[in-house]
Amino acid sequence: MPRVSTDQLAARRQHILDGARRCFAAHGYEGATVRRLEQSTGLSRGAIFHYFRDKDALFLALAEQDARRMADVVAEQGLVQVMRNLLDGTRADARDHDGVAATGPAPDPDGDLSWLGTRLEVSRRLRTDPDFRERWQAHSAELTAATRERLERQAAAGALRDDVPVPVLAQYLELVLEGLVSHLAMGLPADALDGVLDLVEQSVRTLRG
Amino acid sequence: MPRVSTDQLAARRQHILDGARRCFAAHGYEGATVRRLEQSTGLSRGAIFHYFRDKDALFLALAEQDARRMADVVAEQGLVQVMRNLLDGTRADARDHDGVAATGPAPDPDGDLSWLGTRLEVSRRLRTDPDFRERWQAHSAELTAATRERLERQAAAGALRDDVPVPVLAQYLELVLEGLVSHLAMGLPADALDGVLDLVEQSVRTLRG
Repeated sequence: MPRVSTDQLAARRQHILDGARRCFAAHGYEGATVRRLEQSTGLSRGAIFHYFRDKDALFLALAEQDARRMADVVAEQGLVQVMRNLLDGTRADARDHDGVAATGPAPDPDGDLSWLGTRLEVSRRLRTDPDFRERWQAHSAELTAATRERLERQAAAGALRDDVPVPVLAQYLELVLEGLVSHLAMGLPADALDGVLDLVEQSVRTLRG
Repeated sequence: MPRVSTDQLAARRQHILDGARRCFAAHGYEGATVRRLEQSTGLSRGAIFHYFRDKDALFLALAEQDARRMADVVAEQGLVQVMRNLLDGTRADARDHDGVAATGPAPDPDGDLSWLGTRLEVSRRLRTDPDFRERWQAHSAELTAATRERLERQAAAGALRDDVPVPVLAQYLELVLEGLVSHLAMGLPADALDGVLDLVEQSVRTLRG
């Protein structure tokens, strides 16, 4: 085996994660067979499972990476912005599918819709798998912490309403996110959702009037 | 076969629906085998499928009935109240399971938690089954119509904020409902949710300040 640098190993690992994310998004966890994972990554099963013990380890690494990225965006831009990105990603994806671009460029591997696929699978497993629920708590807590920290900073700057405790505001935003993920996953119309997100954003801000 | 009145037929049909609702809530759609449906209704498969063509027809009848009931509650009390009932139902159910009441009374067949089970199955099938999505649109539209009508009445009474169109407010409430269903189904903590629902209710009301 040729010697490769740490950078090359990390790049290869990331390449597998990106391909797997597309594969899980397109086929769901059950449908992402080893054969499909080979196709979406362009690598052999031997190469893939050199980096990840099994399909479950691959999915968990992916979900953890997505959760961390999401917490980063939340820390910088807030949870409402995450929701706006999600909405934009869905529309871009719908345009891709409506067009005649069957041979056009592949969707952006970091696009929000592939993230949606992972997120849905996480939701499903949280419902059905108590072990997974326990293991996932740390990542869920990371998002909650990022959401709260950002809200605390906004509160300190006088930008937030002060009649509702920050943990309640954080829970509120997370509940709306969960509803949005569910709504988009069901393929329901997204027309009125910009106005809804404006309303959500406004309802955590300094009192109107 | 003995002659039975229309009332008796309707009562028998409802008895099957109630038993099936508990069965779907406890075991999910796939897990609700014919044998389990017999146990939960106390009737033979012959009797059950005399009233409903197959398991799918039974599930659809159930989901339709739940959707209609929900639209009725929305029309009278509003979607936020539906969410509060759902939250109360979840807590009552948690108490039942924490207690020593293994031989105690069975949970209320019309309790909100059995409704949650049906609702989750509807969500899952909306995601995975395009035919179902199309057939379900009429019921989904019924809830939206009930929500909008109630909001229109509240708006006419001057109880609603007037800077956001009613369809956006309706969509907002439905999105929060979807998030709540998802949250409860994942078994996540419900402590802060009363405060969240207060915030949701307040954010559709006449402008503060």
